[in-house]
Amino acid sequence: MPSGKVYIIGAGCGTADYLTLRAYKLLQQAEVLVYDALVDPAIIALRAATCETCFVGKRGGQPSIKQPEIDRLLVQYCQQGKQVIRLKTGDPFIFGRTTTEIQALKAANCQFEVIPGISSVLAAPLLAAIPLTDRVLSRSFTVVSAHAPDELDWETLAAVDTLVILMGGRTLPTIIDRLLSHSKSAQTAVAIIQWAGQPQQQIWTGILADIVFQTKGEKLSPCVIVIGEVVRLREFLVPDDATNPTHSHNPAFDEEI
Amino acid sequence: MPSGKVYIIGAGCGTADYLTLRAYKLLQQAEVLVYDALVDPAIIALRAATCETCFVGKRGGQPSIKQPEIDRLLVQYCQQGKQVIRLKTGDPFIFGRTTTEIQALKAANCQFEVIPGISSVLAAPLLAAIPLTDRVLSRSFTVVSAHAPDELDWETLAAVDTLVILMGGRTLPTIIDRLLSHSKSAQTAVAIIQWAGQPQQQIWTGILADIVFQTKGEKLSPCVIVIGEVVRLREFLVPDDATNPTHSHNPAFDEEI
Repeated sequence: MPSGKVYIIGAGCGTADYLTLRAYKLLQQAEVLVYDALVDPAIIALRAATCETCFVGKRGGQPSIKQPEIDRLLVQYCQQGKQVIRLKTGDPFIFGRTTTEIQALKAANCQFEVIPGISSVLAAPLLAAIPLTDRVLSRSFTVVSAHAPDELDWETLAAVDTLVILMGGRTLPTIIDRLLSHSKSAQTAVAIIQWAGQPQQQIWTGILADIVFQTKGEKLSPCVIVIGEVVRLREFLVPDDATNPTHSHNPAFDEEI
Repeated sequence: MPSGKVYIIGAGCGTADYLTLRAYKLLQQAEVLVYDALVDPAIIALRAATCETCFVGKRGGQPSIKQPEIDRLLVQYCQQGKQVIRLKTGDPFIFGRTTTEIQALKAANCQFEVIPGISSVLAAPLLAAIPLTDRVLSRSFTVVSAHAPDELDWETLAAVDTLVILMGGRTLPTIIDRLLSHSKSAQTAVAIIQWAGQPQQQIWTGILADIVFQTKGEKLSPCVIVIGEVVRLREFLVPDDATNPTHSHNPAFDEEI
């Protein structure tokens, strides 16, 4: 029997445009494709006609497959001698739960390889014309997931130049509250980038003091939140022909620029 | 005259494997390719046979082209109606000096677009089997360039879970000194990943107390430095068939694991 291998691949952020050449080539050779929710259907369509697919993503309201089950599935396909792709959105090592899959594969002596992908951590700000680093405004940036904001060290997070927050769509009011209570200026600029890299990409900009009011009633997820003065560079860097809608109704913010 | 456009593209980290499909397609159509040092020659070779090339990178010891000159060059090609690619290693918005190029293009009413690339910030740790995030060890990570360490806020940097440092090969002793003097534990794990994604990739691991001694006499640049307990996960995640050399002669580090 041929020896199987599992390729844990980052599908990148958005459409097939941001897939890597290596991911593309492997997709065309794979025998089994195990994939998450939010992976663009156009990427799934790049597989060989004979490639078996297995959806393991979470879908709201429906019972979803548990992580140990996914781990077992990967081992099982690999032990059958298959060339398996485990496709994840973004980059597999950024809040990706890849660790348990690797440990299961190692424990079963399965061959595997991890392949980086374009992460929304960096690509969402870029596609919104916000550079995360700047010689004056941002010497460093910090990346955090805010799905459980009470577990975070907000004193340190409030002190960094630029914050990039994943999974913060639902917890935005708590995020703002924690930053303000740790002396972050209420005038600090904020951008929320939803569906980065997709045709339906949307951007909201504002300041800590008003972004919750501005986005009231909006379903923000999936989104990347950028907090810091680099957001103000956007006005100077966005292409004049940019077609994505931007919501920035805040006069205070416009004046500050 | 056809209207020109400048595509500012991240070439990714390492070989052509990590180029995006969009970058690949644009490379095959471009009329002019303006590129930096450290871009893999295999990527340059993907251009059309008729595509003009222009090297604008810095090479040690030789006079190098200044940034305003590069800005002017891009505007000039664009105004000639050319399809221009400005190719940078990694991602264009991470310590990439892309801002001045965009401002020059906007001032001259040149069309442009910025396309993300795989950044060594995330890919170097991944390729070294180090996840930057972990539910217990690392709820956040901070990215910083250490080419001028005295300009940084080390008190905050010492407090974050995981540090990813670019351009720290030459300033490693200063980085360690600043962290230790801001109460970072001398036992904190460190990894240095050199030439990430390239065949000559090398990895050193150790702890703050001994990494300078361990790497004495080595030319570390170009490298990505990861500081934090996530480095210790590497032993549990690295493929058994990994062929890249790793230097980890430190008994203290091995014991801690």
